[in-house]
Amino acid sequence: MNITVIGPGAMGMLFGGLLSQNNSVTLIGRDPVKMEHIREQGLLIRDVDGTENIYHPDAVTSSKNIPVQDLVIVFVKSADTQTALSAHSGIIGENTILMTLQNGAGHEPDLLQFVRPGQAAVGVTMQGSYILSDRAVCHSGGGDSFIGAVEGDPSRFAAIAAALTESGLPCHLSDSVRQMVWNKLMINASSSVLSGILQVAQGYVIKDASAWKLAQALIRELCAVATADGYSFDPDAQIDRLYHHLEAAPGGFTSIYADLKNGRRTEVDYINGFVVRTGKKYDIPTPTHELIVDLVHAMENR
Amino acid sequence: MNITVIGPGAMGMLFGGLLSQNNSVTLIGRDPVKMEHIREQGLLIRDVDGTENIYHPDAVTSSKNIPVQDLVIVFVKSADTQTALSAHSGIIGENTILMTLQNGAGHEPDLLQFVRPGQAAVGVTMQGSYILSDRAVCHSGGGDSFIGAVEGDPSRFAAIAAALTESGLPCHLSDSVRQMVWNKLMINASSSVLSGILQVAQGYVIKDASAWKLAQALIRELCAVATADGYSFDPDAQIDRLYHHLEAAPGGFTSIYADLKNGRRTEVDYINGFVVRTGKKYDIPTPTHELIVDLVHAMENR
Repeated sequence: MNITVIGPGAMGMLFGGLLSQNNSVTLIGRDPVKMEHIREQGLLIRDVDGTENIYHPDAVTSSKNIPVQDLVIVFVKSADTQTALSAHSGIIGENTILMTLQNGAGHEPDLLQFVRPGQAAVGVTMQGSYILSDRAVCHSGGGDSFIGAVEGDPSRFAAIAAALTESGLPCHLSDSVRQMVWNKLMINASSSVLSGILQVAQGYVIKDASAWKLAQALIRELCAVATADGYSFDPDAQIDRLYHHLEAAPGGFTSIYADLKNGRRTEVDYINGFVVRTGKKYDIPTPTHELIVDLVHAMENR
Repeated sequence: MNITVIGPGAMGMLFGGLLSQNNSVTLIGRDPVKMEHIREQGLLIRDVDGTENIYHPDAVTSSKNIPVQDLVIVFVKSADTQTALSAHSGIIGENTILMTLQNGAGHEPDLLQFVRPGQAAVGVTMQGSYILSDRAVCHSGGGDSFIGAVEGDPSRFAAIAAALTESGLPCHLSDSVRQMVWNKLMINASSSVLSGILQVAQGYVIKDASAWKLAQALIRELCAVATADGYSFDPDAQIDRLYHHLEAAPGGFTSIYADLKNGRRTEVDYINGFVVRTGKKYDIPTPTHELIVDLVHAMENR
């Protein structure tokens, strides 16, 4: 399969590297030095047990000489999706599957500016990865991935799921990807964003009464919107789940934490912003998420 | 007049020093070294033109040997009011006037745990002062002060207003101190608290679209609550006033900014918290102020 991964971050490098074992893979990124390092020295993936393997996907900054692809996986920061796809639209043809595996939710409208609904796939992954250097990542956690369709039956993505599974990234087709997206948002749009705003490890959110009160308000609004969207979530059960998650992994730092710490633009528009937009669609008020979005943007622009 | 000032911060030192010209003034503070410096070397007040004068109020940490006072002025941090008054309740007698000149709003219930309503005075001051050392302040801005009664006619506070005025702190009696408190809150409970949360100078609040949106939401809720409280404020006019205030003085940093920067407890319960409590009394929703209170507390406890 001809596969291009746009966005060579921690997850893009992990997927691109592993997929290159059995497929013709191109990584596209914006940093010419980084892409040259990957192209010339290979992409290193270290497992948690210390094993290191080097993979050799192609690595470029321009898609000028790349033919139309079977699969394009988008791994750029959510806010950069449209810019990236515009720059590389030449590799997307009538039969190309365009798949998002990005963090957050609500990427479908961005994809549908470039392909028909039948060509768009939404993936969710439980894989974990972090950057070691400009050509190396640590594969910090395995986990299943799921692919769903924006429109219709996901069975047409069977070859993609098989390619991922063969490369060591177990993948399943699913009719309930949107349910999984909501499920992930329960944590990303509550404790993760709060840990970014407060610049603390995630576990602080259950240790401080005021932070915990805010997290619960975020979960309650989330559950109301998800339920209106057709995916029923019980707020008390989700609050319980979040509590146990934070108790079990109190030391976690999130991408929104790192982005705010380093003065970068965050993905809040695709996390809490998605909750606000979906709430508006169903007339469900989301005052806490709205305020969080404004606050994070005010913090980004400092 | 026998006057005790509890809380030798920037404002407590300014008022205590100037009042000591014509009155018997005692400053009470918790730091024995600081109080000894003031007692032995005197309290220095520098004017904006550079003129320096040294004043000699008494300065102590204990009220054990202090007789019942004519006037006790509370200048401690709002959250410390009850603790401080409990520690020094021996100097408050049947005829003592207990006056708050603290920042924020809603101190009356704290005072009324120690005196009858007729003995409680609420002051608002436009004076400005900042700390130079543990025995010195800069009198950074003059301005009128106003004294109102918690119950009844403020005319019984005429001698206090006269004493302040004689000491270079022009003071007036007022029937509308609560209106002035609301007026001050329009800025303190909007741009000041946001500049603290965002850790930016106040002017940023009109420069960033998201911060400005939050400030406007805070003002609109404030105006609704103040109006329900009997003090009519027009939100558009107040938003306009805030804008011009921030345009004129963009570099300002507030006490809530400094408190959060230095990991101290803030006065948010007497700023946005007062708006929330008063809103509850009149059934006016204040979701933005509620969230700000929770967020500031979560930041304090880090």
